[in-house]
Amino acid sequence: MSIALPSGPPFVAVTRGGLVESVHAVAACAAGAADGDVLLAVGDVDVPLFLRSSAKPFIAAAIVAGGAADRFGFDQRELAIITASHNGEPEHVECVRGILRKIGRTEADLLCGAHAPYEPAAAELLKRGEVPTAIHNNCSGKHSGILALCAMLGADHATYLEASNPAQQRILAFCARMTGDDPQTWPIGVDGCGIPVFATSLRRAARAFARLATLDGIADDDARALERVRAAMQAEPFYVAGTGRFDTALMEATQGAVVAKGGAEGFQGAASLPLGAGLVVKVVDGSRRASCPATMALLERLGALDATASAALASFARTPVRNVAGRLVGEIEVLPVAGGDTNTRGQASLVESPRGSTAR
Amino acid sequence: MSIALPSGPPFVAVTRGGLVESVHAVAACAAGAADGDVLLAVGDVDVPLFLRSSAKPFIAAAIVAGGAADRFGFDQRELAIITASHNGEPEHVECVRGILRKIGRTEADLLCGAHAPYEPAAAELLKRGEVPTAIHNNCSGKHSGILALCAMLGADHATYLEASNPAQQRILAFCARMTGDDPQTWPIGVDGCGIPVFATSLRRAARAFARLATLDGIADDDARALERVRAAMQAEPFYVAGTGRFDTALMEATQGAVVAKGGAEGFQGAASLPLGAGLVVKVVDGSRRASCPATMALLERLGALDATASAALASFARTPVRNVAGRLVGEIEVLPVAGGDTNTRGQASLVESPRGSTAR
Repeated sequence: MSIALPSGPPFVAVTRGGLVESVHAVAACAAGAADGDVLLAVGDVDVPLFLRSSAKPFIAAAIVAGGAADRFGFDQRELAIITASHNGEPEHVECVRGILRKIGRTEADLLCGAHAPYEPAAAELLKRGEVPTAIHNNCSGKHSGILALCAMLGADHATYLEASNPAQQRILAFCARMTGDDPQTWPIGVDGCGIPVFATSLRRAARAFARLATLDGIADDDARALERVRAAMQAEPFYVAGTGRFDTALMEATQGAVVAKGGAEGFQGAASLPLGAGLVVKVVDGSRRASCPATMALLERLGALDATASAALASFARTPVRNVAGRLVGEIEVLPVAGGDTNTRGQASLVESPRGSTAR
Repeated sequence: MSIALPSGPPFVAVTRGGLVESVHAVAACAAGAADGDVLLAVGDVDVPLFLRSSAKPFIAAAIVAGGAADRFGFDQRELAIITASHNGEPEHVECVRGILRKIGRTEADLLCGAHAPYEPAAAELLKRGEVPTAIHNNCSGKHSGILALCAMLGADHATYLEASNPAQQRILAFCARMTGDDPQTWPIGVDGCGIPVFATSLRRAARAFARLATLDGIADDDARALERVRAAMQAEPFYVAGTGRFDTALMEATQGAVVAKGGAEGFQGAASLPLGAGLVVKVVDGSRRASCPATMALLERLGALDATASAALASFARTPVRNVAGRLVGEIEVLPVAGGDTNTRGQASLVESPRGSTAR
């Protein structure tokens, strides 16, 4: 086991009857595209962490850069769903089927495994008496995109999950160009859907999201691919996540000024185009329930949300906790900034880490 | 929002490919039944916390002490299910129905709300084409027990969720005698199932579980009621939780030497009869996935588990993380004790807090 642990200050509280019942620590970093341009740092921003599904915009861009989008004529919905952790709603499933038809593959070629789609799709699937398959897996768009890249490269589609597959090699190399890492040094794990996942620091991940915002500091071909993926996410945010989901709501509420992609284990990435900045957030304990309030608070602190967007997204910033019978029993909300107040035990402050402003 | 936050050191790691992906902080206290007899303290043991369902053995004992078990002739399975967060398996549902029959109430009187039962019961219910009702709620045994106490006291059963109901008053007073608190000062919230929940410190909660182990330091009537509930949990551990559940497995593996009851938001209580000690564990962020490994590590540290029990419970101490397709991608395990090793960033140590040995 690696000795480096994700760490950060208490940041999000879950209350019940006015008492704090549970607390989520958060680490986060916001940065510009240039080396050392760190705008904000919370907790440890140098420990390596898996981006999980927050890497999908870069994976999709690697697929575009490899020529697959041109060869198979992917439209913006298809590009958006390649970046998606989708709900498995009927439109999502139909979109992935369209990609598979274009590349001459079938659902049987998807090796992501089957899980029940997210609500409301799960209840509707059940009502229709259908059983979830790999196409309902939230990652099925990405998998179909990787299969497209395999076809483009003449790589074996049956081994597309393996890091040694030429498609995965292309994807890892592209992601490394975005974060500024040497991919040979990356810790590699296996994602929930079976593909290789790489770990990088929040500092470098924030820079990759800043590049998604600015297209600066990367080669022209990479920038063109990234821009095409970004435009697809902005135009078709429903295909990036779905009904009731934060990424979709955030891109809709900001009309694409913020391009966002969450990941498992409490990871969230966002790119603010007007600010030319990237923000990445990691809930230290991996809880999804804390990542939206934390991300909302940090986006507001950066000035990435106007009043209209903040109002439209209020339910993500402060989430009611209801019990089984539907009664309001508590809330999930960001802890108040300590500021000049007396700080007794563990009261949170959105402290900028001493390393936050250090160039690297 | 209260300023007191639960806090404790990093304690349980979730790894992926050898890298720590997420970390859970833990607070915990082990104590004997006598005032100030603290055996072990991790993190802050004085911040008030809701015990959630870990209070159920004491709630059940209040129901017994109120005379309801004698009047309605509850057997050991029925007493055990009053302490339960059960899986909603057919035996559990039938047992709760038996209580309702004995007290002249019906499922319509249960105000806990309906949620899908836990696995494997959920899949089987679905297969039979049934819809979950309040009787499948994991708390339905407790609710039927509170209805029994209402009947015994001549209290209005329609208002049994309210803290002012005589049955709830009896329950809160009993719990306060176990923890040594003044119930008038308790923060009160609303539980997931609608009943009032009280908050006390881990220090005092550990003492209550020590009293469950020793029956010391409490009035004879209370001790008799507590002993009867304890005997029911020891005799019928399946009725306290169910198939695959930690509480059931822990009581079975120790043949009742450890009596255990978990709660929501990462709470766990346990009473070791041979040690005469209580242990309470709170995962700071509320994650259930961390409470079993943490509790196992602390029970082993206290010497509450013999080698046979530890071996039987190994899957709770160190839990494999599998992805959607079933591939092993990581583990959930307690961080190594720092001991004499160099402690770089946040490496966990099972630190005894400086207040750990202070009488109170």
